[in-house]
Amino acid sequence: MTGEDDDFEAVAEAVGQRIDPDEGERERMRAAVTALTERARDAIDDLPAEGDVIQVGSTARGTWISGDRDIDLFVRFPADVDREDLESYGLEVGHAVLPEGREEYAEHPYVTGEYDGFDVDLVPCYRLDAATEIQSAVDRTPFHNEYLNARIDADLAGEVRLFKQFLKGIGAYGSDLRTRGFSGYLTELLVVEYGSFRAAVEAAADEWHPPVRFDPEDHATATFDDPLVVVDPTDPERNVAAVCAAENVARLQHYARDLLADPREELFFPDPTDPLSAEGVREQVESRATTPVAVRFDAPDVVEDQLYPQLRKSLSGVCDELDRRGFDALRAATFADESAVLLAELEVAERPAVERHEGPPVHVRQHAEGFFEKYDNDPETYGPFIDGDRYVVEREREFSTAADFLESDALFDVALGVHVESALADDYDVLVGEAVAELADEFGAEVADYFDPTP
Amino acid sequence: MTGEDDDFEAVAEAVGQRIDPDEGERERMRAAVTALTERARDAIDDLPAEGDVIQVGSTARGTWISGDRDIDLFVRFPADVDREDLESYGLEVGHAVLPEGREEYAEHPYVTGEYDGFDVDLVPCYRLDAATEIQSAVDRTPFHNEYLNARIDADLAGEVRLFKQFLKGIGAYGSDLRTRGFSGYLTELLVVEYGSFRAAVEAAADEWHPPVRFDPEDHATATFDDPLVVVDPTDPERNVAAVCAAENVARLQHYARDLLADPREELFFPDPTDPLSAEGVREQVESRATTPVAVRFDAPDVVEDQLYPQLRKSLSGVCDELDRRGFDALRAATFADESAVLLAELEVAERPAVERHEGPPVHVRQHAEGFFEKYDNDPETYGPFIDGDRYVVEREREFSTAADFLESDALFDVALGVHVESALADDYDVLVGEAVAELADEFGAEVADYFDPTP
Repeated sequence: MTGEDDDFEAVAEAVGQRIDPDEGERERMRAAVTALTERARDAIDDLPAEGDVIQVGSTARGTWISGDRDIDLFVRFPADVDREDLESYGLEVGHAVLPEGREEYAEHPYVTGEYDGFDVDLVPCYRLDAATEIQSAVDRTPFHNEYLNARIDADLAGEVRLFKQFLKGIGAYGSDLRTRGFSGYLTELLVVEYGSFRAAVEAAADEWHPPVRFDPEDHATATFDDPLVVVDPTDPERNVAAVCAAENVARLQHYARDLLADPREELFFPDPTDPLSAEGVREQVESRATTPVAVRFDAPDVVEDQLYPQLRKSLSGVCDELDRRGFDALRAATFADESAVLLAELEVAERPAVERHEGPPVHVRQHAEGFFEKYDNDPETYGPFIDGDRYVVEREREFSTAADFLESDALFDVALGVHVESALADDYDVLVGEAVAELADEFGAEVADYFDPTP
Repeated sequence: MTGEDDDFEAVAEAVGQRIDPDEGERERMRAAVTALTERARDAIDDLPAEGDVIQVGSTARGTWISGDRDIDLFVRFPADVDREDLESYGLEVGHAVLPEGREEYAEHPYVTGEYDGFDVDLVPCYRLDAATEIQSAVDRTPFHNEYLNARIDADLAGEVRLFKQFLKGIGAYGSDLRTRGFSGYLTELLVVEYGSFRAAVEAAADEWHPPVRFDPEDHATATFDDPLVVVDPTDPERNVAAVCAAENVARLQHYARDLLADPREELFFPDPTDPLSAEGVREQVESRATTPVAVRFDAPDVVEDQLYPQLRKSLSGVCDELDRRGFDALRAATFADESAVLLAELEVAERPAVERHEGPPVHVRQHAEGFFEKYDNDPETYGPFIDGDRYVVEREREFSTAADFLESDALFDVALGVHVESALADDYDVLVGEAVAELADEFGAEVADYFDPTP
């Protein structure tokens, strides 16, 4: 074992100390789960249908990071219970287990609440023979749980925790649509595949050439166009890593190499970004000599999994249009908190008053004559003149600055997310140049990351 | 005949009055040619080789425009005379015919001088059986002359003059490499093809869909990738219109329609462009809100047929590089007189201090690590960060204005014409923005045309 190896193991050991739940935490967790399960069973007994209770998620498999307080209990009903009944039974059990709980809605309603300091979700689903028969995504969870339970022992659970914490540290953990990273299930499957955190990291550092493909059960019946493909062992038609963006695969590869070359705890527990001040933003804008523009509006009141895809779609629509109009976005970003922001840093502050507009070839007589007559004697237009075999004019440009465009109704002609569009229709500000320094008040850390980008 | 037809004929008649040489002019021409031919024959008699004298060109065929004073006499020698002898015989005859004449050099040397107010060229060539056997371009001329003489009578000569004058009026006459238009020979062949000026104009207006192709002798043995192809009746491998630019074909089509729709003498005799003042240039720049840049230098001392191709090549090289560097030329032009100018009107005045630079995909480990190490901790560089599956940095841009580039040695890395390159190596000015108004002093008409472009 080389010194570097020792370092790696020492770092893994030290990280483990910080993230492995101790016996007291495990005992409290077990006690809570036992009590909650008991309550649920009692409530099921009062229902006209059969049902059972299972614990799922990382706390069911011992793969949770110390301090995580999520308990997921699924109540399973036979497949012949109709959906409406399933939903009402589920809520009934949920309210019985968590009298102070409240209803939330994913694919169907469920009850969420607190018990003895734990955050508990009580979710109804169907008990099926195979994951391929599922009626909604929650029905799949028990299959995942069963698959992993059979393969993850206490040692491997520790490896899973290390990998999860590493992915958290580098910002690649979570299959939510803001992060688009590695889900818990995906992380556990990769550890099962490689046998340890270290083997997984070594593979990512050196062997992965996206598209990277795993099919643990060798049963895929579909093909997937994603940078990382892990065919669900419980569903041959599903890529567990479908949501994982190319950036996050690359990020894992980058930091895997970094960790192996220079093992250190900071990669697992990075310091939070120091927010940049308004003055700091102004300095960046001056030194980069770009033209940043920001559209700022009240963040739509929707969940993050709706918000971020809409913000990204809107940002991409706006940037494409800014590019098309010649303002050339160098880089762009979107932030959300109370406000939401579409930020584009432009290379071009201003275009001329005129733009080139090509007409038809002169020999296409009817079109050519129509074009010529349209623009000839138009005092706003230069030409028509001939370039190659075509008429060309230079006519008035619609928007000679990005701000002119962003402040106009033409903004609404680009593809915007639906809730972003209605929020903009309500009201928005356009900030240009050093005025984007205002963003530092609400988004100090985000602008700091923007102007000091890391992998 | 409609009123418009009457108008057309009336205009043609009026133009004819202005351009047809009268009997006095013809008589003076005939007398000069007779005297010069006599002198040439006497000189040939003193040579050790056989030779004859023929008159060629438009004055030989009665197709010259009144006032043209060019007399072209060719002295033909047998094909077995070697080239060196041909040249010395040619000069001997030339100097005998034109005692005050001077030597010039096209493909071989010849003598040019004045006689009785006419500009006379005395050119030696070979007498061959077919144009395909020629040793230099001048050997072809007698074949052209013979072909046209057999087909152009006095009436058709009038039609040729009208077409020539029309092409002159619209700026499309001349196969010199500044104009890249219709040569005299091409003009005459088109009139022979169509039978009249009007028929040619009607065809151009309505029937031409480039590539337009004629093969009067139906003997082509090559294919040509030009907008207008007229296979030389004396050489199946030659396109008489090879030099004619797409712009000039389109220009003829445009003005042919204009002439037919509204026949008028001005199209044949346009008013010269009023020069634009420096103040006028400044107004144009302000109203267009572009960033014009001009490179001005002493015009290289070469003939126009060398100069203009080099200027165009240089302009295109400079514009391509300005485009590549993000300054986006809207339009460009080159002028030459005492100075030469490469003018590019840019859409973008300034780019940021930084530019995006894409690295390799992160998974290509060796390249990726090399790239990362090169830029990591470089204080001038933002990143590396990850975009998609790649590393990207924003590094210092080499030139953030076009002037910075034009004033640097990097200008010499673009493809420049050879004499332009050495003239620039000597010295040049860069004018930016309203400073291009200075060009009005020397190029008032050119900048007027530039800012008020017509077909």
